[in-house]
Amino acid sequence: MFAHNKRLQYTVRVNEPNPGLANLMLEQFGGPQGELAAAMRYFTQAVAEDDPGRKDMLFDIATEELSHLEVIGNIVVMLNKGAKGKLAEGTEQEGEIYRSITGAGNDSHLTQVLYGAGAPLTNSGGVPWSAAYIDTIGEPTADLRSNIAAEARAKIVYERLINLTDDPGVKEALGFLMTREIAHQKSFEKALYSIVPNFPPGKLPGMPEFSSTYFNLSRGPGEERGPWNQGEKWNFVSDPDKAQAVDGGSGQASVELPSSEAAVVETLAARTASDAESDPLTGAELGMGVSPEGTEELALEGAGSDASPPSRKR
Amino acid sequence: MFAHNKRLQYTVRVNEPNPGLANLMLEQFGGPQGELAAAMRYFTQAVAEDDPGRKDMLFDIATEELSHLEVIGNIVVMLNKGAKGKLAEGTEQEGEIYRSITGAGNDSHLTQVLYGAGAPLTNSGGVPWSAAYIDTIGEPTADLRSNIAAEARAKIVYERLINLTDDPGVKEALGFLMTREIAHQKSFEKALYSIVPNFPPGKLPGMPEFSSTYFNLSRGPGEERGPWNQGEKWNFVSDPDKAQAVDGGSGQASVELPSSEAAVVETLAARTASDAESDPLTGAELGMGVSPEGTEELALEGAGSDASPPSRKR
Amino acid sequence: MFAHNKRLQYTVRVNEPNPGLANLMLEQFGGPQGELAAAMRYFTQAVAEDDPGRKDMLFDIATEELSHLEVIGNIVVMLNKGAKGKLAEGTEQEGEIYRSITGAGNDSHLTQVLYGAGAPLTNSGGVPWSAAYIDTIGEPTADLRSNIAAEARAKIVYERLINLTDDPGVKEALGFLMTREIAHQKSFEKALYSIVPNFPPGKLPGMPEFSSTYFNLSRGPGEERGPWNQGEKWNFVSDPDKAQAVDGGSGQASVELPSSEAAVVETLAARTASDAESDPLTGAELGMGVSPEGTEELALEGAGSDASPPSRKR
Amino acid sequence: MFAHNKRLQYTVRVNEPNPGLANLMLEQFGGPQGELAAAMRYFTQAVAEDDPGRKDMLFDIATEELSHLEVIGNIVVMLNKGAKGKLAEGTEQEGEIYRSITGAGNDSHLTQVLYGAGAPLTNSGGVPWSAAYIDTIGEPTADLRSNIAAEARAKIVYERLINLTDDPGVKEALGFLMTREIAHQKSFEKALYSIVPNFPPGKLPGMPEFSSTYFNLSRGPGEERGPWNQGEKWNFVSDPDKAQAVDGGSGQASVELPSSEAAVVETLAARTASDAESDPLTGAELGMGVSPEGTEELALEGAGSDASPPSRKR
Amino acid sequence: MFAHNKRLQYTVRVNEPNPGLANLMLEQFGGPQGELAAAMRYFTQAVAEDDPGRKDMLFDIATEELSHLEVIGNIVVMLNKGAKGKLAEGTEQEGEIYRSITGAGNDSHLTQVLYGAGAPLTNSGGVPWSAAYIDTIGEPTADLRSNIAAEARAKIVYERLINLTDDPGVKEALGFLMTREIAHQKSFEKALYSIVPNFPPGKLPGMPEFSSTYFNLSRGPGEERGPWNQGEKWNFVSDPDKAQAVDGGSGQASVELPSSEAAVVETLAARTASDAESDPLTGAELGMGVSPEGTEELALEGAGSDASPPSRKR
Amino acid sequence: MFAHNKRLQYTVRVNEPNPGLANLMLEQFGGPQGELAAAMRYFTQAVAEDDPGRKDMLFDIATEELSHLEVIGNIVVMLNKGAKGKLAEGTEQEGEIYRSITGAGNDSHLTQVLYGAGAPLTNSGGVPWSAAYIDTIGEPTADLRSNIAAEARAKIVYERLINLTDDPGVKEALGFLMTREIAHQKSFEKALYSIVPNFPPGKLPGMPEFSSTYFNLSRGPGEERGPWNQGEKWNFVSDPDKAQAVDGGSGQASVELPSSEAAVVETLAARTASDAESDPLTGAELGMGVSPEGTEELALEGAGSDASPPSRKR
Repeated sequence: MFAHNKRLQYTVRVNEPNPGLANLMLEQFGGPQGELAAAMRYFTQAVAEDDPGRKDMLFDIATEELSHLEVIGNIVVMLNKGAKGKLAEGTEQEGEIYRSITGAGNDSHLTQVLYGAGAPLTNSGGVPWSAAYIDTIGEPTADLRSNIAAEARAKIVYERLINLTDDPGVKEALGFLMTREIAHQKSFEKALYSIVPNFPPGKLPGMPEFSSTYFNLSRGPGEERGPWNQGEKWNFVSDPDKAQAVDGGSGQASVELPSSEAAVVETLAARTASDAESDPLTGAELGMGVSPEGTEELALEGAGSDASPPSRKR
Repeated sequence: MFAHNKRLQYTVRVNEPNPGLANLMLEQFGGPQGELAAAMRYFTQAVAEDDPGRKDMLFDIATEELSHLEVIGNIVVMLNKGAKGKLAEGTEQEGEIYRSITGAGNDSHLTQVLYGAGAPLTNSGGVPWSAAYIDTIGEPTADLRSNIAAEARAKIVYERLINLTDDPGVKEALGFLMTREIAHQKSFEKALYSIVPNFPPGKLPGMPEFSSTYFNLSRGPGEERGPWNQGEKWNFVSDPDKAQAVDGGSGQASVELPSSEAAVVETLAARTASDAESDPLTGAELGMGVSPEGTEELALEGAGSDASPPSRKR
Repeated sequence: MFAHNKRLQYTVRVNEPNPGLANLMLEQFGGPQGELAAAMRYFTQAVAEDDPGRKDMLFDIATEELSHLEVIGNIVVMLNKGAKGKLAEGTEQEGEIYRSITGAGNDSHLTQVLYGAGAPLTNSGGVPWSAAYIDTIGEPTADLRSNIAAEARAKIVYERLINLTDDPGVKEALGFLMTREIAHQKSFEKALYSIVPNFPPGKLPGMPEFSSTYFNLSRGPGEERGPWNQGEKWNFVSDPDKAQAVDGGSGQASVELPSSEAAVVETLAARTASDAESDPLTGAELGMGVSPEGTEELALEGAGSDASPPSRKR
Repeated sequence: MFAHNKRLQYTVRVNEPNPGLANLMLEQFGGPQGELAAAMRYFTQAVAEDDPGRKDMLFDIATEELSHLEVIGNIVVMLNKGAKGKLAEGTEQEGEIYRSITGAGNDSHLTQVLYGAGAPLTNSGGVPWSAAYIDTIGEPTADLRSNIAAEARAKIVYERLINLTDDPGVKEALGFLMTREIAHQKSFEKALYSIVPNFPPGKLPGMPEFSSTYFNLSRGPGEERGPWNQGEKWNFVSDPDKAQAVDGGSGQASVELPSSEAAVVETLAARTASDAESDPLTGAELGMGVSPEGTEELALEGAGSDASPPSRKR
Repeated sequence: MFAHNKRLQYTVRVNEPNPGLANLMLEQFGGPQGELAAAMRYFTQAVAEDDPGRKDMLFDIATEELSHLEVIGNIVVMLNKGAKGKLAEGTEQEGEIYRSITGAGNDSHLTQVLYGAGAPLTNSGGVPWSAAYIDTIGEPTADLRSNIAAEARAKIVYERLINLTDDPGVKEALGFLMTREIAHQKSFEKALYSIVPNFPPGKLPGMPEFSSTYFNLSRGPGEERGPWNQGEKWNFVSDPDKAQAVDGGSGQASVELPSSEAAVVETLAARTASDAESDPLTGAELGMGVSPEGTEELALEGAGSDASPPSRKR
Repeated sequence: MFAHNKRLQYTVRVNEPNPGLANLMLEQFGGPQGELAAAMRYFTQAVAEDDPGRKDMLFDIATEELSHLEVIGNIVVMLNKGAKGKLAEGTEQEGEIYRSITGAGNDSHLTQVLYGAGAPLTNSGGVPWSAAYIDTIGEPTADLRSNIAAEARAKIVYERLINLTDDPGVKEALGFLMTREIAHQKSFEKALYSIVPNFPPGKLPGMPEFSSTYFNLSRGPGEERGPWNQGEKWNFVSDPDKAQAVDGGSGQASVELPSSEAAVVETLAARTASDAESDPLTGAELGMGVSPEGTEELALEGAGSDASPPSRKR
């Protein structure tokens, strides 16, 4: 059960309205690395978690992320406050409103025209928040790693937003929110490593012959080695032939079909077979002006225009 | 530049067709934790990466994931092969096809009717693959953590699929694919820890007064402590008042508005103010049969029906 | 700022596990009419609202909807609890797990294979929750009407779920949740009607000559009149000619183009003009086996098959 | 069955091309509150409706909304007409086209580069129209409320667009479209209230003990009362304890598991238990440069940089 | 099985960084007509294809499209290279970064803030790539037509991008990519026409009485004829009555319901019937200030404002 | 301007209700190849088209597709009619409704629970219709090819649905709809080929050295040639080295950076460099139980379980 207090977790003091900046802040409101994603990621894990300690921690942090959602939402709303009044009341010259809406140079127009200069759950490009951003799968050694990564990403996006603004009140509140991602990452790390063992995640072990092999599949300029594929722990495979059909089989796919199904599959194949020996007249050739008799007239010269093709300059 | 060989990385031997199982396998073809997500996650990082070692590694693994996409796609196609022929040729009794399509008890109907029993890039519920699944943000200490988590998730989904099927050829190929996720996770771990330091991710340090604080925001039955919030490293805050307005301010949001904007904001507020002292007649009351004179006749008794309300049984 | 207590708003007592029923319950967890949509609808309005009374009400109700999200999530998790263990541990015969996963006859397979039998933010068909479900636009006389409608929809979906289950504990908790939608609708109605006037919404009046006109654009069997188009208040227009170009103009669209733009538009038109007098040989005709000389051989007789066309039976 | 006449319902006279304004107009073409959403909302209701009067009304209005879609589409096309020619013919200096495409300051670049300066079914931010915008659920007392709300929203978005432009022809056509939303809302209101009773929607009554209760869950600065929670009709609950487990139970969730399932659930819990008493070395600590012996060297000081943390300014 | 070489298929030489141009280039990276869509379209067809020749061709071209994805991705990354450093390092004055991010006048802000100036799989408006862009249905005579159309679209979008930039290296690489779409279209055309017959696609013939009929359903100004509806091959139907219920039936929809279902359908109809003879007081009327006694006071005059309605200017 | 007549274009006579079949029919209502996609594809082209003949044709066919949407919608509604009553009235035993909803074995549960057994704009898997299905780009030689392909796909999906059902009335109406796709394809073919030339689409010609080249990028078992890559018209390139850096350059990507940007890029590279010579202890190793001193204890043996790895059976 949730409760709410209208005092924010962190005071929001915005120096001056700026709808363009408000738009960028949406990234952490309704964007993929934002606070709703964080809150819902941990909340859904908390609801399904059976381990009492992790369940409690997940509810603690989910609740804080909801409170962060509120802080960033208030930043957005303060930055948009003047714009909201102007558009709703229509008191300015028409050209003025149009110019100020398009002048931000980003997707602030959407926030204003469609969402009334509120705080919509979209990213800064106007894409609605989607639960597809949440990667919870219900296994703690995977989910905690997902949480660790999510906190790392959120930390970075806050860092970018801090780099973008010179409003000291906005900067300070963003700094708090960024810092909390660091603290949360530390908690999730502790929770992961207090499950022993936690690697490989899950229950089934890997096939030993493939779990320390590295296939060198990208060649050419820029080949490098590193701890991710060198040293005793790694079996480094660079021969292309040894990377194919590694089971020693044919490398083909097969299925045993019941004979009735085999027959109908053959019928289908026959009906849709390509005649590899033909050279049929095609629609594209008609479209180039090839006459049925086969004389190419206009082929590849474009739509009758005098435009010249792009060419190599070097 | 990519090249392709029609030999698979792992031979696919399917025992018998099973469109219902094919549908579940789609999870690792076009699902959020599947091989396209993996391949595109690493490919987009590889293209943008400047560090030569990581760039090479990311291309190696992206290329392998594309090859895995091909393996799992072949499993899907083999399991669907008979179904494809039957629907296209329409040779069975109509009732038969309908029964076999709906009999799988999952979303196999979509794979068959819409996608012709091929290998569509959807999850097992028919949701089209979305780049919203990819959480790359262009900072290696975050992206490598995202990769580690993604490999852990993919490992688990393979484990579930292995638990689901008793076809030995399918099981074996899935076992190979699962194992490779383990190997890839190990590579990404090495790559992360070879960046020193890698925590906190990014460049800006946190505010020291908040980076080791834990806010205990969820109370009631089931309070637990653990390494994620206990011990010397943590400042554990349980007093609700100390979790609000932690900056010592008012906990309110404010913005300095230019006077012209302040005026229009006030106009808007006045125009849309609620009269908190009124008790207006509402549409719902009209809808309940409240007459304008105010006599409630049918209130809350439902749409004139004799249905009884749900009630507490205990 | 939010706080949480691990006691639920309503006790959840589930009689027996049932993953198929769990799947249907997702409708009110991550579906379009579900509790996350409700909570986020009111939360985003609360953050942007300036009227103190409405702001307080919106936070009250948003907070309760989050608490309902938790209740319905717990129902889902309880119904899935056994399934979660079986899939993760893989202790059953493989065929068993496959049969039980597909036996539910709905999208429960997705909840289990992809989401580990947790409580994912999807609808019962597996579609991830989207902020596109939220129709907040930042004008109270519109948003309150949206809220009223949303509560009405949620009430109905709960009613359907109540009709579906015979588990008394599930039924009781759903009954509570359904009832609260009624109470919330009543609050939003009071809030709407305490804004005077509230119709038409917004500030601009309509054009008087069109605001009480009804255009009868659908004719044929089943023409009916009703209070929505009859009586003194309505100007009922049934003559098709009076419904077109109602401004008395040409009914055409035009734009004044600068001459340079007009010229390039003409060039484009000339380049892509259709020759309406031609009867060109087409790709489809080639595909039917029409020889360049124009003799139709196989036209419309299908792909060489002996299938007969669908025909009118009556 | 539909028919079409190439005369528009309202003549469109655009003063001069303006691709940036065209982009904003898309809001009512392919946006969530736009005309396609309206047309499809009413059309799908009409098809499924059994009441002859409502069915006729829904077809009338759906047909008019399709005609409005055509009007707003023509406004978009006229505003884009010059841009279409310039991009397709490539006759300008290259820098010119780039500057004019990016100069609009909104998402007009997408309309031009991807959609050829036509009228795509997206909102002004480029998000493709989605049937997720339609909230029809097949119960008239809910759907009519949804329609009323949708008309209110559309009216407001038109009002905003009218405030944005000073092109008199565009303004006039938008005024007509806005006015029609008012008329439609009036029809839907009449249709709703001619169902008696219509509240609560549906058939099941609520639980009387909870249908007039208001839970005061948001506290702190700004507490207000209003007709939505005060007066004799309301049971106002402010004590937090009375808002939890309101059924008088434990507030816990439970399920009766068959013993075999209970056993496997326990196995899973044991396998994934956290050791709450441990203080494990974590990846983050490795990443901070904590040596295995436990000496913190670089903790929380960021990635070796000389950046200083955000700090409180007040 | 795929392999990779770090040499590109075409050398990318970018003259100077330009994040705004990078954003537009995304159209062919993660946009609907871009290279990922192409690669995945052909790859999924290749995996499911049984005809050996077409299978080989589809793998050849899918592999090339992946290589094109890499080329266009490198163009994006090169154009963004400076922006990436500036945002990550935060070395510029804050105002500077904000100005340069919003100054591009398009969605480049999203690429930078959310994606770190990498190469995200979105279109130029920031919409994530979706497998909904792929229209493969598993029937070669349809899929090859889809491929032909897709190549035509991609060719055009490249043409537009070429028209937009004056960077010679970018122009040259785009010219190569555009040219390859022409070559691929030619291959797909040959493959389609080597299936004989290929029209109508599939197996079932059409109903002869309707397969050459053209219904003239749009009338009014601008009626034109052309080869698509004139000449001996066409049965041109212009009489509206002949376009309805063309089977000669009633044009109504009916279903035979079991009597128990018929009864419940009637119950539902009765419960939700509209009273067409009533003229109920509505919420909108309350909202206009209509007193219960029925006197209209403020109707249609807007929210008490002195705003005047839009009016016809001509 | 549209008008509507309540007589359908084709009479719908359904033999008996079948919600499972209704669900499959949704494919052509709100699915990617369905009638809304068709109607909106042609309608948006019609609105933007300047050629009078094509504009008229596009409006004719768009109008017919809307009428088809109505026919297929009526099929869905008739098949669902009984189910709608049962769920709304709740008159059956609860178990009964649950069983009948899940018994269909497909996504009919969604149509019923969420959409009230109406006709929602989703595909048969419950995915909401998206304008991302529409591939119109505003160039007739591309759009007409897209239309041709779309008609071919729709024809095939109708064919599959016809194969699925044995209800003669449904079969007959589907046969009509399928046939009309054939007729429409023929019209679009005529329209395409009456633009001369129409290939390559657009205005810019290709680079002659690459427009007839075929790169043989997929090798291994199953190499085949066909008219798509053999004969005089093709330059067949099989040497891998000749497929890379085909411009004769380095195959590398480069950009000229201003020196200030070059410096910051270097700073970033240095800060995030991997130490390729290290072999750092990783989180995964901690998770495997590797002690800081480096002794592997549990590595790769899974989570302490006695599960055995998947193994090669052959």
